[in-house]
Amino acid sequence: MTATVTVEVGLGDRAYDILIGPGLIARSGAEIARRLPGVRTAIVTDRNVAAAHLDSLTEGLAAGGIESVPIVLAPGEKTKSFDALQEVVDGVLSARLERGDAVVALGGGVIGDLAGFAAGIVRRGMNFVQMPTSLLAQVDSSVGGKTGINSSRGKNLVGVFHQPRVVLADTGVLDTLPEREFRAGYAEVAKYGLIDRPEFFAWLEKNWREVFAGGAARTEAIAQSCRAKAEVVARDEFETGDRALLNLGHTFGHALEAATGYDSARLVHGEGVAIGMALAHRFSARLNLASPDDAARVEAHLAAVDLPWRMADIAGPLPDAERLLGYIAQDKKVSRGALTFILTRGIGQSFIARDVPASEVLSFLRENHPG
Amino acid sequence: MTATVTVEVGLGDRAYDILIGPGLIARSGAEIARRLPGVRTAIVTDRNVAAAHLDSLTEGLAAGGIESVPIVLAPGEKTKSFDALQEVVDGVLSARLERGDAVVALGGGVIGDLAGFAAGIVRRGMNFVQMPTSLLAQVDSSVGGKTGINSSRGKNLVGVFHQPRVVLADTGVLDTLPEREFRAGYAEVAKYGLIDRPEFFAWLEKNWREVFAGGAARTEAIAQSCRAKAEVVARDEFETGDRALLNLGHTFGHALEAATGYDSARLVHGEGVAIGMALAHRFSARLNLASPDDAARVEAHLAAVDLPWRMADIAGPLPDAERLLGYIAQDKKVSRGALTFILTRGIGQSFIARDVPASEVLSFLRENHPG
Repeated sequence: MTATVTVEVGLGDRAYDILIGPGLIARSGAEIARRLPGVRTAIVTDRNVAAAHLDSLTEGLAAGGIESVPIVLAPGEKTKSFDALQEVVDGVLSARLERGDAVVALGGGVIGDLAGFAAGIVRRGMNFVQMPTSLLAQVDSSVGGKTGINSSRGKNLVGVFHQPRVVLADTGVLDTLPEREFRAGYAEVAKYGLIDRPEFFAWLEKNWREVFAGGAARTEAIAQSCRAKAEVVARDEFETGDRALLNLGHTFGHALEAATGYDSARLVHGEGVAIGMALAHRFSARLNLASPDDAARVEAHLAAVDLPWRMADIAGPLPDAERLLGYIAQDKKVSRGALTFILTRGIGQSFIARDVPASEVLSFLRENHPG
Repeated sequence: MTATVTVEVGLGDRAYDILIGPGLIARSGAEIARRLPGVRTAIVTDRNVAAAHLDSLTEGLAAGGIESVPIVLAPGEKTKSFDALQEVVDGVLSARLERGDAVVALGGGVIGDLAGFAAGIVRRGMNFVQMPTSLLAQVDSSVGGKTGINSSRGKNLVGVFHQPRVVLADTGVLDTLPEREFRAGYAEVAKYGLIDRPEFFAWLEKNWREVFAGGAARTEAIAQSCRAKAEVVARDEFETGDRALLNLGHTFGHALEAATGYDSARLVHGEGVAIGMALAHRFSARLNLASPDDAARVEAHLAAVDLPWRMADIAGPLPDAERLLGYIAQDKKVSRGALTFILTRGIGQSFIARDVPASEVLSFLRENHPG
């Protein structure tokens, strides 16, 4: 059993700790009561996660003297909706929780985003605790305070910035995660190396087998990822600048998710990000910003861990290059009509490129289209 | 024609101006474009206000080069709902507005609260402009950044703090306001005097006829009210302390609104606040905190302007004292089970009283109950 690692997110009077390690569900009551004495809670989760962990969490909270009311939702991306938001809000109000009480999110990104949004709007902002149960949520969505739901116009278009008071990332729950889901989360781990931590990427190239196996290397990879994200978020909490770097791989990735109709049998978010990161490096090489060797290195690592890295790795037909460009232009990271991309000058040297010409993107998509 | 008065709300990087005076709808385009160059807008309003002012606003915005898309809702408190929120959010997204664009609220408190909430959550926060068309909204809800909707559990239980970029309070629109609605708004004007501005209350006792008649005295009363509210909000933006003073009269008032089933034929919000303020002063006298002369002075002024000031002024039967206390305990300003009231030591000397014994409130309600 490895020790718990603490990562501090430095956001002034909204600063909080991320605790990473095994056994945190069992210790949740003590950790939360220490930070929010006298708090009462509503646990927001989905049926799948509830079956595996709700009893342990309820006991863990009770061991610290914390009452909890469960709000159990349907699993899946469809739960990031206005209807589910209203269900959570009503549940929290029915439990008669007050502003000083807490909403606890137990689940992956969908649950964290939804529960955090509810916590941000009930009584104009209640306390919020993240207990992420997927690798993706532990290294990405549970850090940084972005919450939200989807709209018919696109994903994550509605939400608030609402920081948690503490994040408890129990690495023990990852042992029961399906292999494909863990691997998809790993794409976001690799992303932090590619953004601005070349040594971390090199470390992953050497140690990824240990990260997949669990134990100290996994805790270390998660802690490094949280540290990397926390640093970017502390610089730019409300995404007016640098925070956009966290979207490395996401512009191409979101377009591919949309192009495959968000069909998780074909592509899940982390896989889209993996292909998106490989494309961002290859596109940067094509624009003579980076060496093709760096793009090749990214592709090789993603292939080594068995992640998809090119459009041809997606099963079934894709829309043509023109339509893919349409999906990119619809993405929310379009500022006043100009295309914004995260590009790179090499491993760990990514940057925000505004005014990328659509014609260059289109040519690149044509050259790399498998159809 | 009186000149425009500007009140600055000092909230650091969220600071903004409130412009007060006639003709501001016609000048809206210039005033908004100066502060938000290149902005596009969605105008959120209700059918009644749209019939009176939507065309002038659309022209006023166009004169400043600002495009607008109208989103017209049903009038009335029922519009502060999840359904209407979703309608506004979808409308803003359909208009393809981006983060730097603006939602413009044209209407009373319902429209301002709803539109501000939508602006606070679309793309995790867009620009927001308040154009209040009722006296109540001009002196209260359009200042301070509280937004929200009602829930089946109570009013304003769901929302966010989201400050406007500018407030344009066109005093010309008040000329067409029904007398009863103007008078109800006046209760909130008098409230600012009673909170901490005894000279303002004395000025109102002398000049209320001119305030009701319109012109410079009305603009001055609105500006004083906005200044008073802005000062409290600047001290305590997120209502962790002093801001609760703004609830003077609201604990009794909300209970009476709930007790009359929010039936506007019997009691509208400002009337509930008027009775609530009188009761708060009378209750303070009963607790030997203030002189009964001050309570009598408040009652006399409310009676002079023809506002209700005692429970007996409400048409129809009221629930008994025990049930009224139940409504008070349900009010959201209950902190961990203790009853919190805004009480006073005299005119303009209100303060936050925590742990007010329920037994004292009950005896007081029994003594003052008309039934």
